[in-house]
Amino acid sequence: MKLPELTIQLPEWVAEYVDQSSQVFSDIEDRMDFVIELSRKNIEHQTGGPFGAAVFDAAGRLIAPGANMVIPSNCSILHAEMVAIALTQKVLGRFDISDGGKFDFALFATTEPCAMCFGAIPWSGVRRLVCGARKEDAQAIGFDEGPRIENWTDALADRGINVIRDVRREKAAAVLNDYVKYGGRIYNPDKKPGKKT
Amino acid sequence: MKLPELTIQLPEWVAEYVDQSSQVFSDIEDRMDFVIELSRKNIEHQTGGPFGAAVFDAAGRLIAPGANMVIPSNCSILHAEMVAIALTQKVLGRFDISDGGKFDFALFATTEPCAMCFGAIPWSGVRRLVCGARKEDAQAIGFDEGPRIENWTDALADRGINVIRDVRREKAAAVLNDYVKYGGRIYNPDKKPGKKT
Repeated sequence: MKLPELTIQLPEWVAEYVDQSSQVFSDIEDRMDFVIELSRKNIEHQTGGPFGAAVFDAAGRLIAPGANMVIPSNCSILHAEMVAIALTQKVLGRFDISDGGKFDFALFATTEPCAMCFGAIPWSGVRRLVCGARKEDAQAIGFDEGPRIENWTDALADRGINVIRDVRREKAAAVLNDYVKYGGRIYNPDKKPGKKT
Repeated sequence: MKLPELTIQLPEWVAEYVDQSSQVFSDIEDRMDFVIELSRKNIEHQTGGPFGAAVFDAAGRLIAPGANMVIPSNCSILHAEMVAIALTQKVLGRFDISDGGKFDFALFATTEPCAMCFGAIPWSGVRRLVCGARKEDAQAIGFDEGPRIENWTDALADRGINVIRDVRREKAAAVLNDYVKYGGRIYNPDKKPGKKT
């Protein structure tokens, strides 16, 4: 058997976008603006779903961005948060981003994590999660967030991961709505006909 | 910025192992034996944690295997199930493995899914999940399965995904125990000191 392999590779426009952005993002709104604009460019370039993410260090330096690439990569695990986590670990050369709690890295996501991305966060080693749009905003356009536990922010807090929500929520949700206006595909493979989102 | 990228690539020994195995695995015990032996080889070769997975079609043909590669790949998302899902989608050329329910593919995993892998399953398009060891078996050697909802099998059933548990459970759990005997590293980056698993 020739073993299959898969390369997680961001769209080319991301490099230019990063180069044109700040080197340091001074506050959490700046960092969120960066990932929201990334999500917008992702739908404009038609390189994936309306979701962006990135990991920043405590000083606000970008370590690695992530964009949703499910459809163009034919890979359901390539949500923006998963891409940002995996590429940050590649850049840092360790699977525990904060290296046993020595550093304070934050994952920014334009929408609250789905069940998979939520489950990935404790293993990633990030110490903070900052979200823009809410689950309800994604559901409003038909995306299913999956079977996530109710008290998910508490579950992360119990593991020492601080969650901040609603940062630039309206701006982040606007990209979700624009995705629908542009005719973007809502992919929910296992959604049964007639099942409520 | 030179964009980072990450290639999901199984260890070389996997190709030989697959070539030496059956082309078709007639029943679910045979399929589970295949992934348990894969998990055993993964610890013997020291190429990752004590977890194996694979996707099979309804006839029992292997589509793609997966092995835990967290430590050697420095990537926390590379659990065996995630690797098997991503590589199956690569082989099939679609992000929805069962293509809208037209086909009946099954994910086999040597241990019940952690919170992340559980969350990934509904997006993957597999119609069945078959597990060997239980969460308790992984916890017994110190692995944390993460904040997964209590009624996880029901949540998958609600999405049309059938779950079968305890297939060759003891044999699968034996590999977990041998991992500890071999001095394998239990990685739980965010576990606080003194926190119960």
